[in-house]
Amino acid sequence: MVISEAELAAMPPRDFCHMVRRGELTRWVSMACSSYAWANITIVPKEYAYEVLLFCNRNPRPCLVINVTEVGDPHPTKVAPEADLRTGLTKYKVFKNSQLVAEPNNITDYWRDDLVGFLIGCSRSFYSLWMAANIKYRWAGVFITNIQCAPAGCFRGPMVVSCRWFKVHDALRAIQITSRALAAHGPLVHIGHPAAIGIKDLCHADFVGVPPNVTPQKPDEIALYWRCGITPEMTVKEANLPLMITQEDMNLLVTDRLTEELTVL
Amino acid sequence: MVISEAELAAMPPRDFCHMVRRGELTRWVSMACSSYAWANITIVPKEYAYEVLLFCNRNPRPCLVINVTEVGDPHPTKVAPEADLRTGLTKYKVFKNSQLVAEPNNITDYWRDDLVGFLIGCSRSFYSLWMAANIKYRWAGVFITNIQCAPAGCFRGPMVVSCRWFKVHDALRAIQITSRALAAHGPLVHIGHPAAIGIKDLCHADFVGVPPNVTPQKPDEIALYWRCGITPEMTVKEANLPLMITQEDMNLLVTDRLTEELTVL
Repeated sequence: MVISEAELAAMPPRDFCHMVRRGELTRWVSMACSSYAWANITIVPKEYAYEVLLFCNRNPRPCLVINVTEVGDPHPTKVAPEADLRTGLTKYKVFKNSQLVAEPNNITDYWRDDLVGFLIGCSRSFYSLWMAANIKYRWAGVFITNIQCAPAGCFRGPMVVSCRWFKVHDALRAIQITSRALAAHGPLVHIGHPAAIGIKDLCHADFVGVPPNVTPQKPDEIALYWRCGITPEMTVKEANLPLMITQEDMNLLVTDRLTEELTVL
Repeated sequence: MVISEAELAAMPPRDFCHMVRRGELTRWVSMACSSYAWANITIVPKEYAYEVLLFCNRNPRPCLVINVTEVGDPHPTKVAPEADLRTGLTKYKVFKNSQLVAEPNNITDYWRDDLVGFLIGCSRSFYSLWMAANIKYRWAGVFITNIQCAPAGCFRGPMVVSCRWFKVHDALRAIQITSRALAAHGPLVHIGHPAAIGIKDLCHADFVGVPPNVTPQKPDEIALYWRCGITPEMTVKEANLPLMITQEDMNLLVTDRLTEELTVL
């Protein structure tokens, strides 16, 4: 079955989730369900849930929690009741004692009755807001910075950011629009020089999501950086949990909520 | 020692906290430290901290958490490092097994090594933003509504709101300003008729804070309602915790952060 980009963009989240569940998609499709909010995922055993939630509370812009599941329940009932955290993503990362042990296309075999899932806002959700304003940009990718997050218990690590290049007129409007998109990542964390936040080369991202544009910054462009929901994954090493599951790269979960619906809280 | 309203309004938070600690103030002064953000307080034993934080996450506008203290540490290091939760408020409510057992002026005798404090944003913080825009209003008070909060574990209860009357021109500007004041309570929850959210009489508030204006609504006024940080206290009865401490009425804690400083997150 071949589905066009336009069909994927117009697809309701439910249909997209079914395709993923049936194994018909094994890589994330960035333009799918274009008007809907997407989420990053962090899954931990219940005994660590308070510290994860506290870490997110102390770092609310990279880690805005839009849904916390009930213990053992894989359904994010607030924003995507029909989605299933075990099968809703195209690819996962499974960590045991800080080691990456698997990158499966579902986590049915890893699910346990004591797991709690955190859905965290994602800058992918900006797209529809920008499209509505005819804002253009070039995607650079996702980068690990030298900005340290506020720690909580055993959770500590650097902030991750997404970066895009804009022409100035579009940059100014993108800043305005995202400043109120608080169910995604909201305002910028940085503007301009990557070295100021510890990024060596904008043409070599740490996470790519979709193939980034590796043409270096042009003279009429400015780099804008938003906080990224991949940030909790940076805590894996020090937290050293017996089990922690995240999305692989940018294999996100689509919610049933329009971006604008979550933006106006 | 007699201090004028103007002196209290201009007083730095540190000096105000010292006055409270020395017992020189035993009732809250609404106009004190006028440019600073104020906070509601909920204190619970560590074992209930996850469910409180989850309740706040699920009800982020009445219960926006601006600081969570470390277990046993009475200092809210993020927003008021020199403040002390045991002595920083003019009056507290101490609940044991859902019963109000004391209303002391400090909680030094009740403090324990397993307590966690939650500082929750407060609509008092709007004042300086409104003053800066020359917005006038009449205070009606704080009311328990029939809107049910999203539950979390054993925490469930109705939402509490604050209400003020504005002339239309000021109402429109107050809505604009508070829509971005997200470290207080942000946008309105209701506008107009009190009965629609279960309030019988705007001249008889459930909590008053400062003496409310009991002149009924005038023909050229509109009632605006914001979510209120007293909401967690409504969970006391069903949660039935061995110990839970809140502020009494609107005896709030002043932070070291200007309202505008917290507004721009």
